[in-house]
Amino acid sequence: LKVFSDANWSASAVDLIKTGIAPHILIQSTKPSLSVLHQAGPDDALAEADIICGQPEVANVLRSTNLQWLHLTSAGFTRYDTSSFREQAAARGLCVTNSSSVYDQPCAEHVFAFMLAHSRRLPVALRSRAANGSNEWTGLRNGCSSLQNKSVLILGFGAIAVRLLRLLGSFEMRIVAFRRRPRGDEGIPTVSLNDLPGPLALADHVINILPENSDSIHFINEQRLALMKPGAVFYNIGRGATVDQAALIAALRSGKLEAAWLDVTSPEPLPENHPLLNEPNCFITPHIAGGHENESESLARHFLENFQHHICGTSMIDRIM
Amino acid sequence: LKVFSDANWSASAVDLIKTGIAPHILIQSTKPSLSVLHQAGPDDALAEADIICGQPEVANVLRSTNLQWLHLTSAGFTRYDTSSFREQAAARGLCVTNSSSVYDQPCAEHVFAFMLAHSRRLPVALRSRAANGSNEWTGLRNGCSSLQNKSVLILGFGAIAVRLLRLLGSFEMRIVAFRRRPRGDEGIPTVSLNDLPGPLALADHVINILPENSDSIHFINEQRLALMKPGAVFYNIGRGATVDQAALIAALRSGKLEAAWLDVTSPEPLPENHPLLNEPNCFITPHIAGGHENESESLARHFLENFQHHICGTSMIDRIM
Repeated sequence: LKVFSDANWSASAVDLIKTGIAPHILIQSTKPSLSVLHQAGPDDALAEADIICGQPEVANVLRSTNLQWLHLTSAGFTRYDTSSFREQAAARGLCVTNSSSVYDQPCAEHVFAFMLAHSRRLPVALRSRAANGSNEWTGLRNGCSSLQNKSVLILGFGAIAVRLLRLLGSFEMRIVAFRRRPRGDEGIPTVSLNDLPGPLALADHVINILPENSDSIHFINEQRLALMKPGAVFYNIGRGATVDQAALIAALRSGKLEAAWLDVTSPEPLPENHPLLNEPNCFITPHIAGGHENESESLARHFLENFQHHICGTSMIDRIM
Repeated sequence: LKVFSDANWSASAVDLIKTGIAPHILIQSTKPSLSVLHQAGPDDALAEADIICGQPEVANVLRSTNLQWLHLTSAGFTRYDTSSFREQAAARGLCVTNSSSVYDQPCAEHVFAFMLAHSRRLPVALRSRAANGSNEWTGLRNGCSSLQNKSVLILGFGAIAVRLLRLLGSFEMRIVAFRRRPRGDEGIPTVSLNDLPGPLALADHVINILPENSDSIHFINEQRLALMKPGAVFYNIGRGATVDQAALIAALRSGKLEAAWLDVTSPEPLPENHPLLNEPNCFITPHIAGGHENESESLARHFLENFQHHICGTSMIDRIM
């Protein structure tokens, strides 16, 4: 089998993959894709691949006539999440997997870090040298809060939400999820679009993990922000395009939202002087929620685990199509 | 009964207490104590009290000849934690309680917020606008880590440690505790002083919750810092005096410690130009770990719960002597 990869692997990850797939061969792209948001150019070697692992452009995937399996080295899969691609993949019997299992834990920890940093007022407290008993100190102490007994709404119920539920489990929070088609096995109350207004109005913490697709663009808009509880905190670790940023700025300025914590924006990074950068209650990290030590090696190991399944014809992990 | 209080209650907390103890009476100090670290002056009304609730000076407590019960509105009790006071309290049959139950959850959440903020690199990431795929971005992503599968050493095993264990439970961490006299019911491996070097050398995260007393002053000193794992992260939400700050600065500068996150220092606040304030890997909040919404009311409710126990002669909550 010919395995083509346009991912930007570390040297040790390349070793892992070559050893793990031998006697099958790895063909590395001459133009590696640096991240899920970058487009790599076409690559001749890709056309002959049996397996593609990385972030190839859709047109190039469809040009690969031998292709059996496409493995994405990300959790997000915006560019493939169209009815056109889904139909062509189904017609050709193409298996598509992503790397959710690699990113679910760090992403859940990242949003949890946001929640605790907010409730413990770290952005202000780490700059404060207030003396015990001073007004500033009393205000800071009383401004702190506990996550315990608060309510959470999770928008999007995938691998990250499942991890997040586990982490939040020890905090005795009231948690509701939204997904397009609730299955009943979520383990928490889960609503579809029609029933979203109720939980939106009750949540102290609204966590957006929605993927980007034609249904989710500007999902968080003026209307949905207006439905939220006054003083709610909004978190986004999904995709920036799912939020109408002008509406978000208005909700922050009016005080409707107490704060927004964003790992994703549109575009990334935001241009100089973008108003979100100057909002005092908007906290932004540069799309690093999935980052962790030895990320390249854990992606390689995840691919190799699926490679075994592919060879054995057993059930693939993180199959999305 | 005469209940004397020198605590700095909110108006609604005073109402709660007055209603809760009636027909017994509340006598409020004319010189309320602003925090556990402040000393209020003597107060004539205190001498006649049956119950004292607040942060009175030791000399004044011992002058109160009718005193049956002393309730501290803090978790820390440094000024009473001497063999002299313990002996006199025991000789007079004085019951002493503190407010651990009020502060255990916020303190545990605060140290947890520190741990996640550190592992997700929030102090750097919230200032970064690194572009996807850039060297800065890759460095930031790879610098992030997960708490999962890391090892933790908790110094001091009281109410906060018990809460912290529950919160950390979902992270699959290896947790060891140190306490003077392990009881065997801690639920995790717990060592005494003789066996401390082993776990100190293994821990990725060292969490200091030690109270301040004659045994614990400069407990974290040059020798113990030298025993720690290179790259460990140190947290202090106990008392500042338990750390030799000069040794801590040296350990940060040498890179022995990756970072220190402190809610307490000695003194508080640190004076301008104190070297810890300029250490890039030292992160300080101003003794707010116990802070939470309606702190005064939750302290009042906790006191009233114990007041019921005192009246009924049943077992007091958070009894320390």
